This record gives sequence, C-alpha cells and structure tokens, in this order.
Amino acid sequence: MERIEHRASSGGWQDVYRHESKVLGCTMNFAAYLPPQAKDGKLPVVYWLSGLTCTEQNFITKAGAQRYAAEHGIIVVAPDTSPRGDDVADAEGYDIGKGAGFYVNATQAPWSRNYRMFDYVVDELPALVESELPASDRRSIFGHSMGGHGALVIALRNPGRYRSVSAFSPIVAPSHVPWGQKAFGAYLGDDREAWKAWDTVELLGTAKEKLPLLVDQGDADEFLGRELKPELLQAAAEKAGHPLTLRMQPGYDHSYYFIASFVGDHLAHHARALLR
Amino acid sequence: MERIEHRASSGGWQDVYRHESKVLGCTMNFAAYLPPQAKDGKLPVVYWLSGLTCTEQNFITKAGAQRYAAEHGIIVVAPDTSPRGDDVADAEGYDIGKGAGFYVNATQAPWSRNYRMFDYVVDELPALVESELPASDRRSIFGHSMGGHGALVIALRNPGRYRSVSAFSPIVAPSHVPWGQKAFGAYLGDDREAWKAWDTVELLGTAKEKLPLLVDQGDADEFLGRELKPELLQAAAEKAGHPLTLRMQPGYDHSYYFIASFVGDHLAHHARALLR
Repeated sequence: MERIEHRASSGGWQDVYRHESKVLGCTMNFAAYLPPQAKDGKLPVVYWLSGLTCTEQNFITKAGAQRYAAEHGIIVVAPDTSPRGDDVADAEGYDIGKGAGFYVNATQAPWSRNYRMFDYVVDELPALVESELPASDRRSIFGHSMGGHGALVIALRNPGRYRSVSAFSPIVAPSHVPWGQKAFGAYLGDDREAWKAWDTVELLGTAKEKLPLLVDQGDADEFLGRELKPELLQAAAEKAGHPLTLRMQPGYDHSYYFIASFVGDHLAHHARALLR
Repeated sequence: MERIEHRASSGGWQDVYRHESKVLGCTMNFAAYLPPQAKDGKLPVVYWLSGLTCTEQNFITKAGAQRYAAEHGIIVVAPDTSPRGDDVADAEGYDIGKGAGFYVNATQAPWSRNYRMFDYVVDELPALVESELPASDRRSIFGHSMGGHGALVIALRNPGRYRSVSAFSPIVAPSHVPWGQKAFGAYLGDDREAWKAWDTVELLGTAKEKLPLLVDQGDADEFLGRELKPELLQAAAEKAGHPLTLRMQPGYDHSYYFIASFVGDHLAHHARALLR
C-alpha cells in the first residue's frame, strides 16, 4: 500500500493510504490517524464508517477526532464508503452506487462484482491495517447514518471481533425505510428474507453477544422520522434484552457539527473497552 | 441581517448570517458561533480571519473551535475573505480578487469600489455583531496565513480595540513576498511607501501598544520560505522590543490539521485576555 497523504495532527499523523483491494476489485483509499503513542508500539484501532456521499476525507477533515485519539492513544481508521473507479458500477442518485455501498455484500448484477464492503471492512482492511501499521488486533467500530448502520450490523454479525460499537444517527431498520429499501433492493434483490441479515433491528433478536450499543441521535435531524426511526431500535433492544444507550440530543441535526460535538464521548467509550 | 444557517454545535449554535454591507457595497456572509452561555447575557467575541480561497465556511467546518469556545464562553465570528457577487471585480488566480481581499482598503481601480475588508472587519462587522448578537465590546482577533496577516495588521493599527491577537502561519511581511507584492501592487498601487501601513514587520517599529503576539508556525509548511518568513517577524519584534511568542511546530504544514491541533491553545490565550 502507498501513503498518499501525511499531515501532522494533534501530535500524531493523519495519513491516507491507497491500496489494491482484492475483495472489491479496485483501488481504494483509507484514512488512518496515528496518535503520538504509535511510535512506541502497537495500538488498538477504532474503525469509522461514513455515511452516504462521503469518502475517506469527510471524517478526518470535519469531526475533530484526532485530539481525542491522541489523548487515548488509539488509531482511527476511516475507509471509503464504496468501491471506486471507472470500472465500478454506478447509478443515478446519491443513495445508490458509488458513495453508497451500505456495508453489505451485494448478490445482484451489476453490483455483485465490486460491492462487497462488508467483507472489506470486516476482513481485508483490518488485515492490512494490522500488518502494515502499528496496530494491534483490538478493534472497535463506529459510524454515522449509513455508516452507523454498517457499524451496528458488522458488530452484531461478528461476535467477539469488536470490543465496542457505537453510532451517530444510524439507519437502524434499512428494510423499513426508503434509503435501505432502494439500496437493498438493488444490491440484495427482491427477496426480503435476505435483507434481514443486514438489518440491525432484525439482528438484535438473534445476537449471540450482548455488546452494549451507544447511539447518539439529534432530535432535529432532518432524516429522523423518514429514514432513521430510533424508536424501532429501542423497541428491538428492549424485546431482545440487548443493552442500548440511546441518547436523543436536543437541537442537533444530521451534520458533522453533531458528530464533532459528541465524537469525544464516543472515543472515550471505545477507549474504555480497548484499553482495559 | 438574516440567519441562513443554524446548527447545534457543542451545546451552542453555529450560525451563518447574511447582510448588506455598506462598506463593501455587496451582500456578505459571516459565521458566528454562539456558545451555550450566550443565553445568559453578553459575551466577548474573537474574530477569526481566514486565508486565501476561503469563505466563512472553512473555519467553522474544519477547525473544531466550537468546543473550546463553549468551554470558555466566547463567541467566535468568522467573516468571508473578500467582497462577493457578480458586480465585484475579480481576476485570474486564487491569490487576488475574490477570496483574496488581504484585509486592506484598496485604493486602485477596479478594486477600490468594493475591496475595503479592513474597514469591514474593524468597524462595520463588530458594530453589527455587537448590536444584533449577544456580544459585548470585548474583542480579540486571530487568523491564518492571509488572515494571520490581517489579524496582526488590524490589531497593530487599532491600539486599545483588541484585548489579544494571535496568528497561525501568518504572512508577516507582505511587501517582501510574492503573494503580498502581487496583491498590494493591485490593491494599493506601485508606491511601496503606501504598503508599509499594511505590513506587520513595518508596523511593529511604530506600534503604540505592545500587545503580545502569539504566532504558531509549522516547520513543514509548504509556504514557509517563500511567503511566510517568520524570521522577519522575529527580527522586527526584537528590534522594536515588541513581545512575541513564536512557536515553530515541528512537522506541521499549512493545512487546517495544523489549525485544529492548536486552536485550543489560541482560544485559551484569547479567553485569558477577554475574561479577566
């Protein structure tokens, strides 16, 4: 892999790497913040999954997470949100195709050739990070909106693989909202039974590991009632007896101002799990 | 004035306002962060001046200053970097015309009609802020690159008006570097005597008020040797007996990663002066 950006940040380095992904069949960028403690040995890694339209850049330029990662001594890795390149299938609309991989493994043409973001985030990327960077195999995961969905689904489907999980404004029930229905219909096909394996509220009922969920949700979020529906998460967690801390944050919207306001809380949550 | 953005941020509100500027003869946007304490009375204001190519958006989306402003209870106001609009003169190049006002009052056609950013930042904008927002007349000022030049020049030319001043990677000697020579030649004309009133290293020799200068400069800044030349500031401050804290920050470049890494220090510096 090749380092294409390297910028001093909060005592450490905000890097961006480029590599050939076998899983996705294309060239991918990912960002990695290496705190100052990375000079002295292997550190745990928090994976950040971004939302619709994002690349690896949005989180690292707007969230202000570096100072907290430096305080705790944890690496933060932020991948892109879909496969990329001229040979990769795309479609009209910001909510499908490039920038909108939804962290699933697509089964339907033309998407199935490249759109395997689940396998990329769960397996290929950590293997690369843990072999090429000063990273241990202690992992946590969090994300925003489509990436909040990704973080919750990935943690629930991989018991034991993550020490902690959290989300900002996640799509918790993609099978039941327009964004998810459009993407799942395209990537996974019309059989809604197949969607359940990619839907947090469905997965909670059968989760083998009761990893506590920390979710922040702005109550002025413009997508709250139509796409996010945190009440479905709350009901599913109660039914399953799954520990959930759902914080409705008054006045906050869906933007990075919201993420920046609470990213310190989330990194403290992950640091507690990763460093104990 | 009209509020065109209003987003919850670190317990307060990141707003953007639009207004008709008499001084500039055009419609202008400026950003104002109102910390939670703004509910309870008037607060001091720190003015941030951005660098070349920026609008009022760059600082508020990338610097992560809101959490510090909320801690200290200070308002942060960030104006645009030039007059704007179809009727405003412009030129080829990112370093002259729109996005490149250099915080001077232009005397040369076609610039003199609108390019009066000095008067706008010193007089019109604070008058508006102090009448329309919960802002006191306690003011400090800081900025980056072209905006660091602006902050230093504005503070030095207005003794008693600002409680503190600081800069990231400022252009300290515009008369002696390509960016400044191009802009000053256009805005102020060929008489270099007239440039001295807009040049920090020239102004230090005659400053009536010894307001301490805090300057952070990355030693890996891509513009360090050609445009920034902090050694000229250091020599001028020593000669004038003007208090200067110049911190060369190892590894840092000219980007917002640098600003985000030290903006907390700068806001603490301003809070000490504004809140005592």
